[in-house]
Formats: sequence, C-alpha cells, structure tokens
Amino acid sequence: MSEQHLPSTGREWHLAARPDGWPVPEDFALVEAPVQAPGAGQILVRNEYLSVDPYMRGRMNDVKSYVPPFRLGAVMDGGAVGRVVASQAEGFAVGDAVLHGLGWREYATLDAAGAVKVDDSLPLRSYLGVLGMTGLTAYAGLLDVGGFKEGEAVFVSGAAGAVGSVVGQIAKLRGASLVVGSAGSPEKVRRLTEEFGFDAAFNYKDGPVAQQLAQAAPDGIDVYFDNVGGEHLEAAIGALRLHGRAVLCGAIAQYNETAPPTGPRNLALAIGKRLRLEGMLVGDHYALQPQFTAEVGGWLAEGRLTFEDTVVEGFDRTADAFLGLLRGENTGKMLVHVGG
Amino acid sequence: MSEQHLPSTGREWHLAARPDGWPVPEDFALVEAPVQAPGAGQILVRNEYLSVDPYMRGRMNDVKSYVPPFRLGAVMDGGAVGRVVASQAEGFAVGDAVLHGLGWREYATLDAAGAVKVDDSLPLRSYLGVLGMTGLTAYAGLLDVGGFKEGEAVFVSGAAGAVGSVVGQIAKLRGASLVVGSAGSPEKVRRLTEEFGFDAAFNYKDGPVAQQLAQAAPDGIDVYFDNVGGEHLEAAIGALRLHGRAVLCGAIAQYNETAPPTGPRNLALAIGKRLRLEGMLVGDHYALQPQFTAEVGGWLAEGRLTFEDTVVEGFDRTADAFLGLLRGENTGKMLVHVGG
Repeated sequence: MSEQHLPSTGREWHLAARPDGWPVPEDFALVEAPVQAPGAGQILVRNEYLSVDPYMRGRMNDVKSYVPPFRLGAVMDGGAVGRVVASQAEGFAVGDAVLHGLGWREYATLDAAGAVKVDDSLPLRSYLGVLGMTGLTAYAGLLDVGGFKEGEAVFVSGAAGAVGSVVGQIAKLRGASLVVGSAGSPEKVRRLTEEFGFDAAFNYKDGPVAQQLAQAAPDGIDVYFDNVGGEHLEAAIGALRLHGRAVLCGAIAQYNETAPPTGPRNLALAIGKRLRLEGMLVGDHYALQPQFTAEVGGWLAEGRLTFEDTVVEGFDRTADAFLGLLRGENTGKMLVHVGG
Repeated sequence: MSEQHLPSTGREWHLAARPDGWPVPEDFALVEAPVQAPGAGQILVRNEYLSVDPYMRGRMNDVKSYVPPFRLGAVMDGGAVGRVVASQAEGFAVGDAVLHGLGWREYATLDAAGAVKVDDSLPLRSYLGVLGMTGLTAYAGLLDVGGFKEGEAVFVSGAAGAVGSVVGQIAKLRGASLVVGSAGSPEKVRRLTEEFGFDAAFNYKDGPVAQQLAQAAPDGIDVYFDNVGGEHLEAAIGALRLHGRAVLCGAIAQYNETAPPTGPRNLALAIGKRLRLEGMLVGDHYALQPQFTAEVGGWLAEGRLTFEDTVVEGFDRTADAFLGLLRGENTGKMLVHVGG
C-alpha cells in the first residue's frame, strides 16, 4: 500500500439543471470537491479516460427508466478507466489499470468490488469502447438479440458510431451477404465503406431513408440494428424480409425531441412478414462477455477488426464532448482524455 | 364410390371489384357455376359451414402479401367444412366429414390430399373455430410466440372475437395472474367476464385505451395479444413490464383505412424495457397442432373451455356475414351455415 502524493481535492462534473430538449452547457457545473482517502477494501483511482454516451441524455430527465436518473447537484456517473494511486484493497496495487463506473471526475474513491482490473498491454481507452460496453452491445445485439446468421443481409443505422461501426464489422467477419450502413455526413459515409468494410453506405440527410435503403439493398434485409429510431426504423420495417429481426438499441434521433415522435406507420407489416422487433440493454448480456472478449479481442489482435474513437482532450471539456456526441460530431466511441 | 344425385350446378361467391376502404355488397357477386365430377383421386364435397375471416379483407387488395390476393372474377377461397357426396379417392367415402380450403361455394371438387377428414362426434363448425385455425392461432400465439408463463398478466384486444376469446381462456387455464380483455360493445364486455372468465374487461369506445388498461391492470402486463393494432398497441407498449412481449396477430382497426395509420409513438420504450414485438401467422405453427388438439380438445370435453360462434344462416348471406364481421357484429367465430 502506498498513499504518498495524494490529492486533497479534485474536479467533478455535476448535473446543474435538467434540460428540456437539447442540453446546453449551463446544465452542467464543474466543481472542485474533496478527494476521500480510501477506507478498508477501497481504492483511489486517478482517471485517464471518461466515457460520454447517448444513454446519458435519458438519465438527465427525471423520469423512471431502466437506469435511475442522475441526481441534481451530483456527479454524472458512467464508465471510466484509470490507474490506482492508493489502495487499501487486496489484489489492487498502485499503478494497476482499472475500469469502473464512477464517471465524470478526476479522482474516484470506491470499493474494489466495483472496479475491474484490465490488461494494460492494450490501449486503456479500448475498454470504454470496442472491448467494453459498446463492443459488447454490438456483439450481443447482432448475434444474440438479432439472431444473425451467416449469409444474411444487415442494415445498421448510426453506423459510424461506437456501436454501429462494430456491428457492421462483426457482421462482415461472421459472413454477412451484405452490410449497409447509414450516417449523417459524407465523411462518415466514406469511412463506413473505406475503413469499416461496409458493402454500401448512405447519408440519411441526402434523401428519404426508405429510398436510399432500397437502392443499397434491393433484395431487402434480414437484420436491422437500430441506433436511431424514427424514419430509419420505418424504412427498415419496409425492407425486412420474412422472419426478419430489428434490434432496438437506441433512438438518438428522438432523445432531444420535446414533441412525441411518430411511430412506424407500417408496423402491421410485421404480422405478414413475421418480423420480430426486440429492445436490448447490454446489461442482460454479460454472460456473453468471455466469448465476446475472445472473439473480438482475437480479431483486433489479428488486425481484422478496426475501431476509431474521438478523443476530446481535457477534463474541463467533458460537457462539450457530451454535447458534441449528441450533435453527431464523433466517429466511433466518444471519449474524454482527462490529461495530466 | 357413389355418384348418384350429383348436382350439375352450384352457387359460388366471386370477387367482383376491389374495394377502396370499406367493402360494399357490390364488391361480391353470387354466381351459378357448373359442378365438376371428381376425377381420379378427387372428392366432391357439399359444404355445410363456411368461414369468413378478417384476413380475407387484405386478400381483396391487389398487393403482394403473405397470401396471394383473391383474383377478380374468381371464388373467394377460405376454410370450409362439409360432407363427401362423391369420391374417387381411396380412404374417403360418401358421408365422411372433411375440412378444406376452397371457400365460398356450395360444392367443392378437389384432390383428396387437400382435404382433412374430421371426427364428426364434435360439431363440424368447431373445426373452423376453436379446434381449427383460430384456436391454433390463439394457442400458438400465446404460448409459442408470446412465451406466456404461469403467473403472468395478459391483455387481449379484440377479446370477444374468435381468436381473442380463446386466448383469454387458455391464459386462465394455464395459470395467468390476470387476464384483461377489450371489446367494442357493452354486451361483448359482459361476455368476457361472465362467459369467458376474463378477470377484467372494458369497452374501448368508453375512453382512452391506455387509461382503461391502467385501471384494469395497475401493475402492468407481461403479454399483449394484439388483434387490432393502432391505439391498443400503443397503450400496451406503455403497460408492458420489463421483458414483456407483444404478439402481433391482427390489425383489424386498420384494414379498411385509406390513410396511413399512426404507429406507436412510444416504441422507444421497448429499448429500456427490453420488449419483444413479434408478428405471427398460424401457418408457421402447424407443428403444435397435435399438442393443441390434445390440450384444447381436452378442455372442451371437460367443459373447462367454452366457445361461441355467430352463425349466419344461408349461403346467399355470405357476403353480408363478412361485412358484418368487419363491423364487429360477431361474438366469437363468424360462420355461414350453407343450409339445406
């Protein structure tokens, strides 16, 4: 155990106000707070990377949901990786790399049971992305919920995002006959085909999704991985073939809407085509973690799967990073580098 | 083989025009046509009961669907039961009761392979309802697609219909904690609780479905069996608990609409609640037939399951019966008695 050079205070990001529609910088507050020395069984972690994720927008609302809302005046919690700087816990030494869920703060004091030691021969930030929750979401969603099988055609919306870019690559590596992605800028669309190996991609801002999807997948699709909801979901229901599946993973298109969204007007097609639409949260699929780590980690090591992330430098820019994420400014996983 | 007293002509109902919106009597034509004598391997059947079903409305449109459209100027085909009056097929004798799919005609000549002999110690018309396609739809939809388990709460729309009334009873017999049904008249609502054993029922015309459902099932539901679509489906998505399932079986509320329906605006709730919505057609579930016949037939024989049907007398009233079905004038299965 080593406790020298411990900070007495550290900065944290608090939820200052609950947004109505799009969040603004004033909804967040950067606060200096005391750092607690670790008690028995605890560790003190200095964070290196923080995760900002679309689902956090939902937690800013004071509504009952699958994860409790953030509390006003308290830290925005979420995924983070860092290194142990003080330990009162067996099995954790100063310098160990750990993953935890205490979120937007420079220092975190927590029970060791709430931290997972990670192999730091891989970049630490990959544990917040391709080897972490977003990668597992892609893997479990496509294979477990979507029931994807070799030879099937897949459509992914929000395809340049942290989850979508991995979904498309897993589908190709597992033998998809066709992988189509949609994204919101020409640059993202270019990356889908040139870097992530999608067979076809389109910019949903260029025209009706249904029309662009029909051009990219004239014979239809078998699995739709939905990160956005809205018009994309309706177009996919139209394009799904008999016994097709839609994995409902996100609805970022709707998160900041104050008016009720429209639902897919063609949902009755699900009867005749025997479609299955199924919502997912990664927390139901942790049992797949070992298989996921072996398969995706193997592809990464072999250079057959690639990932991008968008790293915003500086803890003080965390709220900006989150707002940029909601505007779609990221390619791949959006992260904050806490810095030195 | 016996072929005496064979008719030379018989009446048939043809599709005369394709409706735009609600069908009208002029869309159908009553036609006198020659009766073909059975060839080798064929039987001639005199129909006793004809089925009129909501799915037939879809077949009146000239659109690609899971079953081909009816052809203009040809017979409206569908389920029928009758007795063999002439046979050139081994194993079929004059007087045998058979089920077949040749639909709205007094006499049907068909290959014996297209007919199923049925036990006539039970009322023949039950093979078009509770022991036929509609009963199997209820059984397979609730248990196989909906994955209903003992102790769960179930909501059924169109609950006084041929499928819905059986769904509710099977749920109770299989140990549901709560079975709620909706229907469109006070008389139907009364039957749901008094005759079919539903725990609660409401008239959807009395107020918003979501509000009435919340009163009947304040703790929510686990399985929703959807026969109507529209507002009912949206209300059910709101009421479904974590890992709830919606069986999409019919959308009769939308069949005669000419404007696009609205979709469920709250579909994004499916993500956090990990809901599954799945379309079904009974044709995918014939493997369940033996289990279904044993279990439901047993309940019928023991008097633990009841069914109602609405029998319209006279072949010449077949089109009227179908139009009445679309207006909801039936309780349970709607049938036509071909008569003497």
